[in-house]
This record gives sequence, C-alpha cells and structure tokens, in this order.
Amino acid sequence: MAESGRQGRRRQRRSEDRDVSGLNAAYMRMRNPFAPQSVYSADEIAAIHDGALRILEELGIRVLLDEAREILRLGGALVDGGSGMVRIGREMVSSALASAPRSIRLRAANSDREQDYTLGTMLFMAGAGCPNVFDRDRGRRPGDFNGYLETLRLQQSFDVIHMHGPSVEPQDVPINLRHYAMMRGQLENCDKPLFVYSRGRQQVEESFEMIRLAYGLDEAGFTDGVWATTVINSNSPRQLDVPMSLGIIDFARAGQMSIITPFCLAGAMAPITVSGALMLQHAEALAGITLAQMTRTGAPVSYGGFLSNVDMKSGSPAFGTPEHIRASVGSGQLARHIGLPWRSATGAASNCADAQAATETVMALWGAVLGGATVTVHAAGWLEGGLTLGYEKFILDIEALQTVAELSRRDPADAASLGFDAVAEVQPGGHFFSTAHTMERYQTAFYKPLVADLSNHGTWIENGSLTADQRATAVWRQRLAQFSPPAACEGMAGKLDSWVQDKISSGGAKPED
Amino acid sequence: MAESGRQGRRRQRRSEDRDVSGLNAAYMRMRNPFAPQSVYSADEIAAIHDGALRILEELGIRVLLDEAREILRLGGALVDGGSGMVRIGREMVSSALASAPRSIRLRAANSDREQDYTLGTMLFMAGAGCPNVFDRDRGRRPGDFNGYLETLRLQQSFDVIHMHGPSVEPQDVPINLRHYAMMRGQLENCDKPLFVYSRGRQQVEESFEMIRLAYGLDEAGFTDGVWATTVINSNSPRQLDVPMSLGIIDFARAGQMSIITPFCLAGAMAPITVSGALMLQHAEALAGITLAQMTRTGAPVSYGGFLSNVDMKSGSPAFGTPEHIRASVGSGQLARHIGLPWRSATGAASNCADAQAATETVMALWGAVLGGATVTVHAAGWLEGGLTLGYEKFILDIEALQTVAELSRRDPADAASLGFDAVAEVQPGGHFFSTAHTMERYQTAFYKPLVADLSNHGTWIENGSLTADQRATAVWRQRLAQFSPPAACEGMAGKLDSWVQDKISSGGAKPED
Repeated sequence: MAESGRQGRRRQRRSEDRDVSGLNAAYMRMRNPFAPQSVYSADEIAAIHDGALRILEELGIRVLLDEAREILRLGGALVDGGSGMVRIGREMVSSALASAPRSIRLRAANSDREQDYTLGTMLFMAGAGCPNVFDRDRGRRPGDFNGYLETLRLQQSFDVIHMHGPSVEPQDVPINLRHYAMMRGQLENCDKPLFVYSRGRQQVEESFEMIRLAYGLDEAGFTDGVWATTVINSNSPRQLDVPMSLGIIDFARAGQMSIITPFCLAGAMAPITVSGALMLQHAEALAGITLAQMTRTGAPVSYGGFLSNVDMKSGSPAFGTPEHIRASVGSGQLARHIGLPWRSATGAASNCADAQAATETVMALWGAVLGGATVTVHAAGWLEGGLTLGYEKFILDIEALQTVAELSRRDPADAASLGFDAVAEVQPGGHFFSTAHTMERYQTAFYKPLVADLSNHGTWIENGSLTADQRATAVWRQRLAQFSPPAACEGMAGKLDSWVQDKISSGGAKPED
Repeated sequence: MAESGRQGRRRQRRSEDRDVSGLNAAYMRMRNPFAPQSVYSADEIAAIHDGALRILEELGIRVLLDEAREILRLGGALVDGGSGMVRIGREMVSSALASAPRSIRLRAANSDREQDYTLGTMLFMAGAGCPNVFDRDRGRRPGDFNGYLETLRLQQSFDVIHMHGPSVEPQDVPINLRHYAMMRGQLENCDKPLFVYSRGRQQVEESFEMIRLAYGLDEAGFTDGVWATTVINSNSPRQLDVPMSLGIIDFARAGQMSIITPFCLAGAMAPITVSGALMLQHAEALAGITLAQMTRTGAPVSYGGFLSNVDMKSGSPAFGTPEHIRASVGSGQLARHIGLPWRSATGAASNCADAQAATETVMALWGAVLGGATVTVHAAGWLEGGLTLGYEKFILDIEALQTVAELSRRDPADAASLGFDAVAEVQPGGHFFSTAHTMERYQTAFYKPLVADLSNHGTWIENGSLTADQRATAVWRQRLAQFSPPAACEGMAGKLDSWVQDKISSGGAKPED
C-alpha cells in the first residue's frame, strides 16, 4: 500500500500514529524461531511425493467444472469428459511447481500489517467457518451477523492474528447478500490481509470489486498485488467441485491467493495411515496448484494441509492427537520438498473451553509450529471441531499464540544481559529484586499474561475461584467495548454504501454449488 | 536386575507374564523423536558457560557443610572457612565433566522398567513434593499418607511415567519416620526406578538399606547399580545447604544418582534475564556436579534446570510462559554443551485443572521435549506451582504425555502403509471405511483418548455436559479401584516389616537441615 502513491502515504502516516511499539510490533512480523522437524525420512517423503504423482497420473482426479477440465486439458492432462476424470502427468506438475511463487506479499490496508507469505514466516489466522457461536453471557446460538462482526473485531484487536478469516457464518443474512455483509465487515473494521470465500464467480468478483472500491485500486493495481486470500477445500478423495474449481481459476486470474487445502480425515475420506493420507492430500494439493498455474503462470498459491484422524468412537475429527501432530509435521516436510509456503491448522473437538480444548489446541499449535507452517488457520476460538466459535476459547487461544509469538523474538545473551555484575552484587542466598540489572528491565522482562491468573490459592478463592474460561469473558467484553476501527477504515462506509445498496436492490448474487 | 541371578530371572519371567505388548511397551522405552532446538547461538552458549565458570572461579559459591568444603578443597578449590565461600577453578570443573558418566543405567525391580538415562532418552516423572492434594471428590487438603500412596499407585498405573517421585508429602507421618513410610510405599506398590529424598545422612542410608533388603542386594551389588535417584536443589543464588551437600556426597559414595537442579526464578533468586538466570543455574549445577565427582570419580550425576520467571503481579513462579520455554530449550543447549543428560520440568500455576492449567503444562512440556530433556519432572499433576497435587490434573496430564509418547514411535511410510491400492479402490468423493487397508488397521491406527471426549454437542449435553476435569475423576477412581501391586512387589511387606518395626521402635531418624 505504501507504494501506491498519495493514498498509500496517508495510510502509512496514520498507521504510524497508532502505537506499534513494544510487544505488539514484534507480534506483527514473525519468523518461526524453530528449526522445522521431521517425522519421515527424506526417502519416505520422496516416496509419498511419488505416490501422489502416481495418483494424479494413473488414477486421476474428478473435476466437476468443465472450464477447469479444459484448462487442464490444454496444459496436457488426459481428460475423460464423461466421468470428469482428469489425469495429470508429472511433467505438468513439475512445471506448475516451477512457476508457483516461493514468496507472496500479502497486501493490507495498513502497510504495517502486510506480510511476506513464505516458508519461515509464522502467521496465525482465527478459527473460521463456524455455523455457531458461544460465549458465557449469551450461550450457544446459530452464527449471525453480530457474532461475525464481534469476532472479526476480536481478530483485529490482537496483533498476533495476522490474516482475517470468516470466523462465524452470518446466517441471518440471506445467502445471496451475505458476501456484501462479510466484505463490509472486514473493510470497515479491519486493516489486515482479507479473506474472500470462493462461493461462485459473481460473489468472488463482487468481493474483489468492493476491495478495489474501498482501497481506491484500479483493476491493474488490484491484480498486481495480493489483496485477498481464499481457502480451497478439495472434496477428498480425489474430487474438485464447481465452486472450488471456479475459486482456483478466478483467484489465479485476478492474481489473488488460493490456499489449496484438502481436508483429509485419515480413516474416512483418506487412507487410515497418516503417511497414506498425506499421499492423498499431496496429490489433491498438487492438482489444485497445477490448475492455478495452468490458469495463470505465476499465480499466487499456497500448499495446504488439514489432516487429522477421526475418533473411532464418534466418527468426529480429532485435533491435537498424535496423528494430527504427525500429519502437520509431515505436511511441512512435503511443503519444503516442493519448496512452497504452506498452511496448517489447529482446532479442538471439545464442546467447551476446558482443559481438553486447551490441550488439543496447544498440541496442534506445536504441530503447526514444528512443521514450519507459514500460516496456521483456526488458531483461535474453534470448539466442537469448528462447529462453534467460542469467544472465551478465542481469548484463551490468543494467550497460547502470544506465548509462541514471544519466542519468535531473540533473547539477548550479551554481557549486559547476562549480568555478571548483578550476580557479584547479590550475596549467596540473597535476591535480585533491587539490583540495577533487575530495575532496568523489570517492566518489560516478562510476557504479561492475558488471562492466566498466577495468584495464590487464598487470593484466587477470595476472587471467586474463577476458571480461566470464566475470566476470559471479561477480556473479550472489554476488547469489544473499547474497539474502534483502525485508521485505515476511516470513511470506508461512504465508499461502499451506494454500491452495495445498488447490488442489494438488484438482488445480489447467489452462491454456486 | 535380570543379571542378578536366580531372583533376577524369576522377576524377569513375571514381568513377561504382565501384558507389555502394544502401546504400553512403546511408552516404556522412549527416544525423543525431535531434534533438539536452540534459542541461543553456539557463541552465546559458550559465553553463558564461560560466565558460569567465572562465577565459580571469581565469586565462588557458599557451601554450608564442612565435609563438602573439605572435599572441594582437596580437589583444588580455594576455601574460606569463615564465610563458607568456595571458589572452584575451571580446570576442576573440566575434570569433573570429563569423569561424569554420559549414560546411566537406572535399575528397577522390573527389568522392563529399567532406563538408560542419557541424552536422547525421553522420560517422565510425576509432579513431586506437593504439600497439598486435591481431587473433586474430597476437595483440597493437606497431603497425607493416603494421598501419597494413591498418587504413587497412579504413577505406577501409567507406563508413560518412567521414574517414581514423591508426589505428595505425607504430613500425617512424623518426620523422623516418614522416610520409612515413603520407601515402603514405593517398594510395595511400584516397580520403576525409585526416588529417595536427601534429608540427611541417616535417612538416606536407611532408605538405601530398605532397597537392599527389598531387592536382595548386598552392599556391593547395590553400589554397582543406580537403584535410587535424588533431586538436589541449590539455594539460589550461589549456596549449597547442609542436606543438599550431604545428599550429593552420600549418593555419590553409594553410586546412586543425584540430579543437580538449581531452582532459579529469573527476577527473584536469579538475574531477571533468561540468559543471565541460565548462567547462574549453570554455575550452581557445575558446582554440584564437581562436588559429586570430587567425592567419587564417575559418580552418576545429572545436569538439571528448573528455571522460569516470577509473575510480576503476584511474585509466584510462572509455568509454560515464553520465558519458561526459552529457559528449558536453553538449558538443553547447555546440557549438550557439557555432554551430560539433563532434567527439565513442566508445571502449572493455575489453581484448578482448567484451560490455563492445561496450557501451562502443555507449553512447558514442549519446552522440555524441544530442549531434549532426558527426564521431565512434575510432568503430571502439579497445580498452584507445586503446592497441590491434583488427581484430575494428573490424569489430564497423562493424556498430554501419551500424546508425546505416541510421537516417539515411527510412523511407517512403506508401500503397504501408503496404500496406493486403497486410493485406487475408492471412487472420487467416496470413503475408505470398508477398504481392506482400513479394516486391517482400524483397531490400532489411532491413539485412544484417556479423557478427551470427541462426541458431538448433543451427545455431550445428554451425557451431562461434563468438562474434562470432571471426566478425569472417573478415570483416577477406576485406576485406583483396579490397582494391584506389580509382580515385582510380591512378598515385599514380609521383607521389610521387622526391619522397619525395629527402626520405629528405636525412634527413627530426624532429617537434617
């Protein structure tokens, strides 16, 4: 944005007015501080990659959109029009992988919020796509526009959330008008990289148009940068439906980013072994990446993995299990094998923000971090495997994300930090409270908890014996009460009002399915 | 034990009778599946190590026990008898590090439970030393012998706990008789490597004697193997008190293992920076290791680190914070720098088994795992920073430990596991439930949760909307109800009864302080 002339400079100045010093600034640009881990040998990763190529070459993938099949046919794929099956040769995949960018600049209304989406960057996105919301004040209820807006504002309120996601499905807005409401919500309240659902060509194009209107971009200026991201879920196994195929094509043509994310549940829609499910995930992701690159060479795409196991008792997806962690680390190995940035996810199956939910999400978070995920989706607020966005869970997860974020800052170990003189000053058995070394640092030395209460048992009892989820209610309430849109959103309503009114009057745009 | 003749063979057979197949066997011998991480550069680690050597050389450490000062003086240290200060040269430290063993075989009543205590091994020990206990049935109460025994039995019940620890302080047993009760508890209920408190020479010697009696070992047979472990906490900063100095000496002489663990809270008993606190921790640990090696060359010792920050609001120790994780990974770097196995710890400051408690412990667990800790202490059950052992928290933590334990097993990625044929068999958009590949594996494919409930919201409500800690109550109840001592404990009471009665009659042994 800073590069785009007068308006860019104006926004740049505004964003400097905002307090981006201290901890928050550190949260806004994060590198993964850990070396990526491996759960498979290099040979095994090569075998999984080769198996995926064989799937595409020998078995093929069913593509339900004629236009997508035609693009792939022109790129060299073998297409069976009757069954919709498309067989993609390995040289096509290689060529797609060669042209897919390794690093993608995600643009944002606030240039401080822009991100380099690449291996090594560490980004978090909130829980997305939830049909229900829950908070302790109002209970569990179907997602509505108010819930969408509130959780969007919570996303904006924490710097450790880097990309916006459609946290809650606003089911009180008619489906043909919903994309207007969702885009307005983002444009009027948020200044981070935006999300657009792939729910058909017209909705996508109109969402792009709203971004152009809002940010004062012409078609070329828009296409030249990545202003919107979508998530593409294949219908595992081996199927790409109409809206998903359209999404890949439309985002590629417009130069916007698709995150190609098969949702493979081992033992259900994928082989029951983690390695086998990874092979299927890899095949489907490669098919989507190939379609994007055949649509437009160099189109911004991300590898994606969302692979876990099903609970054998309930059939529900599991999160933070050994299989989930293994799959995340393995997905990271596959992403590095092909050299592309990638998306992972956390989540929780728990029905409430209890110890199970925390364990699931924190375990899954470490899987994503150790897998070197570029972005970790559903990183805050998911309950019930994504059926509910919990406000308290969101706040509790922010604490976990901030903990990891702090680790992305290097801790100094120079002579001044080591403080040999302070050690010399304090007598054996004494304390460091009043040393100059402590006094100079005590206000910023440690992470300040958001929800964690470290008071002793007596004080905790006196204060009402509140559990962490009970305390989290006050945190989201306060954040919402003090919310005001960031500077970049100033005057946004005026820019969009009449355009949106016109669209609504002409009946909106139905999603495709 | 297997090597020790007739009796050893008998135990060996018994342990084979026990079901050690499947998952449990995998939990009993674990290697850390992750590459150790770094938070400091090699130069920074060298600087921290050097700073620690300077502390010992230039500032010294106060040693309150005459005998320990004399051992160090004979080893070349400069001793000031008046102040108790001992200055230890770096050549003494080098020589101690050269003679400290890199790998220590921990012996156990059940030879299947023996462990190689070395870098790369991954062991867990339950929360230890708690003055209170809590469970949802009986509430919070001072630790008593029943609580000690029950939590010891819970330790024995889960294979993912590898070494016994004194979970609860049995305050209803007089302090001069307490070590008899604690040792009997372990010897009559447990078959894993044992823990002995360093509370004075007589208590330690009598505890050793009970092990010899119980396992039929003569003095030489006992000294020849490591049958007992103790934890030595220095009184940071730079002080080693009488019972701790005695413990190092007595364990070294008897060939038993001391885990030298300074408990350094950054900003309180240590410099406020993590790097500075690590420097102090390292100095104190090196002093203890040196005392052990000067006492007996080759004595089994472990490096130890228990370093976190204090909460600036309450002054309480914090767990699972960024500073705690950083300190654990940094401690691992220092341990590898000197080549010794090492001990880390998890823990929780939370007052109840809620989402905060889970986040704290799981975060801290990953710090220990990524630091490559040989043993992680307090890994199950700690609440209130160790002031309370929570039964439900214990069970919830076991789930987290089992999750990590599962990851220590390699996931196969050979052709049969990948299941290309299964992928070929399932049509696009279909499912894998009934493929042969799934059917052959579904019973063992995934980790089976201990407490996690993955049922959907409706079912969860029908079942009473129980939180994880509420469900955990049933788990510990059932484990205690079905507990029976392992085969190795058979006839143990008979071996100990009269000896212990004699000791009690003659008044027991007071701890030293």
